[in-house]
Amino acid sequence: MSSERLIYLPLGGAGEIGMNAYVYGYGKPGKERLIVVDLGVAFPDMDTSPGVDLIIADIAWLEKRRKQIEAIFVTHAHEDHVGAVAHTYDRLRAPIYARNFTANIARRKMSEYKHPDDAITTAQVWPAQITAGPFTVGFMPISHSIPESSALIIDSPAGRIVHSGDFKVDVTPGVGEAFDAAAFAEIAKDGVKALVCDSTNVFSPEPGRSEGTLGPAIEELVSSAKGMVVATTFASNVARVKTLAQAGERAGRSIVLLGRAMKRMVDASLETGVMKDFPPTISPEQARGIPRENVMLLVTGSQGERRAASAQLARGKYMGLEMKEGDMFLFSSKTIPGNERGVIKVMNSFSEMGVDVVDDSNGKYHVSGHANRPDLETLHDIIKPQILIPMHGEHRHLREHVKIADAKGIAGVLAVNGMMIDLSGNAPKIAEYIETGRTYLDGSVQVGALDGVVRDRIRMALNGHMTVTVIIDDSDEPLGDPWVDAMGLPEMGTSKSPLVDVVEADLAQWLGRASPKTLRDDKLLDDGLRKIARQSSNNEIGKKPEVTVVVSRLS
Amino acid sequence: MSSERLIYLPLGGAGEIGMNAYVYGYGKPGKERLIVVDLGVAFPDMDTSPGVDLIIADIAWLEKRRKQIEAIFVTHAHEDHVGAVAHTYDRLRAPIYARNFTANIARRKMSEYKHPDDAITTAQVWPAQITAGPFTVGFMPISHSIPESSALIIDSPAGRIVHSGDFKVDVTPGVGEAFDAAAFAEIAKDGVKALVCDSTNVFSPEPGRSEGTLGPAIEELVSSAKGMVVATTFASNVARVKTLAQAGERAGRSIVLLGRAMKRMVDASLETGVMKDFPPTISPEQARGIPRENVMLLVTGSQGERRAASAQLARGKYMGLEMKEGDMFLFSSKTIPGNERGVIKVMNSFSEMGVDVVDDSNGKYHVSGHANRPDLETLHDIIKPQILIPMHGEHRHLREHVKIADAKGIAGVLAVNGMMIDLSGNAPKIAEYIETGRTYLDGSVQVGALDGVVRDRIRMALNGHMTVTVIIDDSDEPLGDPWVDAMGLPEMGTSKSPLVDVVEADLAQWLGRASPKTLRDDKLLDDGLRKIARQSSNNEIGKKPEVTVVVSRLS
Repeated sequence: MSSERLIYLPLGGAGEIGMNAYVYGYGKPGKERLIVVDLGVAFPDMDTSPGVDLIIADIAWLEKRRKQIEAIFVTHAHEDHVGAVAHTYDRLRAPIYARNFTANIARRKMSEYKHPDDAITTAQVWPAQITAGPFTVGFMPISHSIPESSALIIDSPAGRIVHSGDFKVDVTPGVGEAFDAAAFAEIAKDGVKALVCDSTNVFSPEPGRSEGTLGPAIEELVSSAKGMVVATTFASNVARVKTLAQAGERAGRSIVLLGRAMKRMVDASLETGVMKDFPPTISPEQARGIPRENVMLLVTGSQGERRAASAQLARGKYMGLEMKEGDMFLFSSKTIPGNERGVIKVMNSFSEMGVDVVDDSNGKYHVSGHANRPDLETLHDIIKPQILIPMHGEHRHLREHVKIADAKGIAGVLAVNGMMIDLSGNAPKIAEYIETGRTYLDGSVQVGALDGVVRDRIRMALNGHMTVTVIIDDSDEPLGDPWVDAMGLPEMGTSKSPLVDVVEADLAQWLGRASPKTLRDDKLLDDGLRKIARQSSNNEIGKKPEVTVVVSRLS
Repeated sequence: MSSERLIYLPLGGAGEIGMNAYVYGYGKPGKERLIVVDLGVAFPDMDTSPGVDLIIADIAWLEKRRKQIEAIFVTHAHEDHVGAVAHTYDRLRAPIYARNFTANIARRKMSEYKHPDDAITTAQVWPAQITAGPFTVGFMPISHSIPESSALIIDSPAGRIVHSGDFKVDVTPGVGEAFDAAAFAEIAKDGVKALVCDSTNVFSPEPGRSEGTLGPAIEELVSSAKGMVVATTFASNVARVKTLAQAGERAGRSIVLLGRAMKRMVDASLETGVMKDFPPTISPEQARGIPRENVMLLVTGSQGERRAASAQLARGKYMGLEMKEGDMFLFSSKTIPGNERGVIKVMNSFSEMGVDVVDDSNGKYHVSGHANRPDLETLHDIIKPQILIPMHGEHRHLREHVKIADAKGIAGVLAVNGMMIDLSGNAPKIAEYIETGRTYLDGSVQVGALDGVVRDRIRMALNGHMTVTVIIDDSDEPLGDPWVDAMGLPEMGTSKSPLVDVVEADLAQWLGRASPKTLRDDKLLDDGLRKIARQSSNNEIGKKPEVTVVVSRLS
């Protein structure tokens, strides 16, 4: 027996939806040659990551093994799969492979960060293969809600792995390639060691519906509209964008694309040839010159994002265009959990304008891009893998997916981020636990999620902030009284005097009684003043603020 | 013609879900005698109100007219209808009327704030009436997801108003009174001027299901469970709590109530007699002594609230009890928009423990407490009002509800918070716009939502905080260099030196060049130092922090 092993290690995406980052390795333990599949981002929220711009997987483990990395493969151009490629390029410097459309999108991002264009190699589809050390990797087209999504056929000396990427079983996807059961059966015919499989929709019990089924309902809706029609969807869902645009065109409307991502995705689709014959578009300026019943806007912001076009229109004029009573706004999208408040806010703003808001609550104007439970089983049954490793899902999704595998007699493995699985033998086993986590892109800086930076911001958001300043003269005596500034705190508390006055008085009293030892010791002063400031605030306003103490010594 | 008028004025709940507060008045303009219907709270969130404890309607308008207020009527004991009664008592001091169960709950809250027990009068149901100045008001039982909910029959010299309160059309509600169509027809038979009507479920197209339909499915589920069963629902949904407890009892399980609200609601129901024969319960200590397959916990925290029993169990041991592999957790509830992240977090923690989580995604274990669209129409058709005023709903709900009214030939009025409607004539008209808003209960203080306190906290959460300290000596010269403290900011930026060092150097340079005029002027110093600190930070970390500048003058 060789002492080489085949490993699977998720660094992101296994235990969450988003931030996909998976590692495969082959070789002697610790010396494996590695490939990375996807480097995506997750999005911040006020509850856990206020002020953060993007979240990426902690790649410290990979960075330390940079020389072992043969290549990075990107399955498709969604941000949660490709979004971290540019942000990690400097630290990994490995060749990146993606299909044409994905590469086009990725290169736009790379060039923003001044990375070289040729860092990304355009891959051809299966049966073409890329050799990456002990691996050969093929891009196998699979249907999803963005063009040119791929499963990866990863061959190693220890057997074949099928990494599904995000997918759905759609034989009429509109734009992009149909799901090809025969082709997957063909690649599986000599046996597949492991299927590493999308899990996001495992709790959806009905078979998924095809993108191709939406056209008629959307056309009917748009043609019934009286005023201007505005529709939003994920810009990357190019098939949907096209369906919407065609519905507009057929209803005699000129199409306007609003929002950077919307234009970027349509451009990339046309440039790469994944989409042909998109209806002609006009500019916002041109749109202003024609009757509103002849206009249809396709806009970004299906998740109610504050800065996207939909939210801008909800606040008033955007690019010279404005919604009015009798117009219609269509959410051809679903709301991702956590985004409800933003979406509802946009809906209500439109309602206030007298705009009719149509959403997907009746299931007519949106279909998911992911495989539902029966569709997952379809893939399982085609691939017939020895091992099933659920990926891309929260813990509950992965666990449910493992249960399905087990019920089918497939060895299911519940591997969350940081769990290295040895796939070499007949049964998968846990090889190691790797420390993983999240890195925050915060302004122009990357900080660790556990560095405390964001924790401090959350505390200030909950408790407010107080600055306490004292000056100690050169004989270690206070010079004047302590000074207090408050931010994010009520001006007045229970005693009906200004909060800062009350706290200053309490601090002055404490300082007046402080021992010479305390007055000489910055640490004791700092601790004492902080404690009094917090206690005094708590008495006044029922809240203990975060406190910055500044002791200035004239000595 | 008399110059008296009948007015309706929502101060909360009209343009939002939650924070219900409605005013009716009758009399000469400006001199109307007033009654208040419901004084509820809304709940804060990190996005818009971090650190806030509760949100209540701004009652400044009412407070100014305190002497005109005849009475406050509370339709039912949900927090968004009764939650602000204790917090506004000192400012309004009006007699409060509620039915027995609601009064029981309200008095518990009042006593926490040391308000007198007799501030709340227990009301009898219709045909009993309470005289409140020019009004007579009757409590008309109506089905909802809490016992003793009531519509109010409000008679005035200008006609009868039916204020629906929150309701559903349920003839088998389990605990509490069934919807009585005949009784409502009877009160409507001489004509109703206005129906002021719940709108929250106006977008649900199917008729609502009865609470009474849930028992068999829940019993089947609980009796199929192998390990411990834990179920959560709104504690105030006493009928559901009873259904769950009975399912447990029939499956041979002892019932444990966990969470303060759970015990309070069951106690209040038994005390007031609205519920009889609740299965016997045991304490957590007793539960530890019996096999887990014979235990069922009923716990608070259906919305994933951090401090509730469900989240505590998700984090580990709570009251000596702990969930284990093979146990089951049932959400007999729906997730309120905005609470998804918290609920999902709880679900995934249980998944990690190997607990099977069952939710309502198949519609079997929960029904809504509100009237769906067809049920709303049922009430419209029974009451046949001259005017329909939708209440309790976001703008989009109110607007949709008005459309339904208009389609029926009823005069629908879209009245949002602050819009005073004159109902005296044959057609409703807008009488006035009143300034309204939200008041935050923040620790022990009430602050206005627009006071800037919370805005500053949000800014610190997004941008971090920096303190800049300088000492100016008695000849108006800087004594030493500026000093910087940062909170919630990365330690290091692009120059790979500590952020505070870089900013201090920039500040020192600016201060060194500052003119004598600037050095003499606190405002100029403050502005200049703040600007430099923000610019310098932005260069280093791509973020402009909130800055507190402290200039200490020795002179």
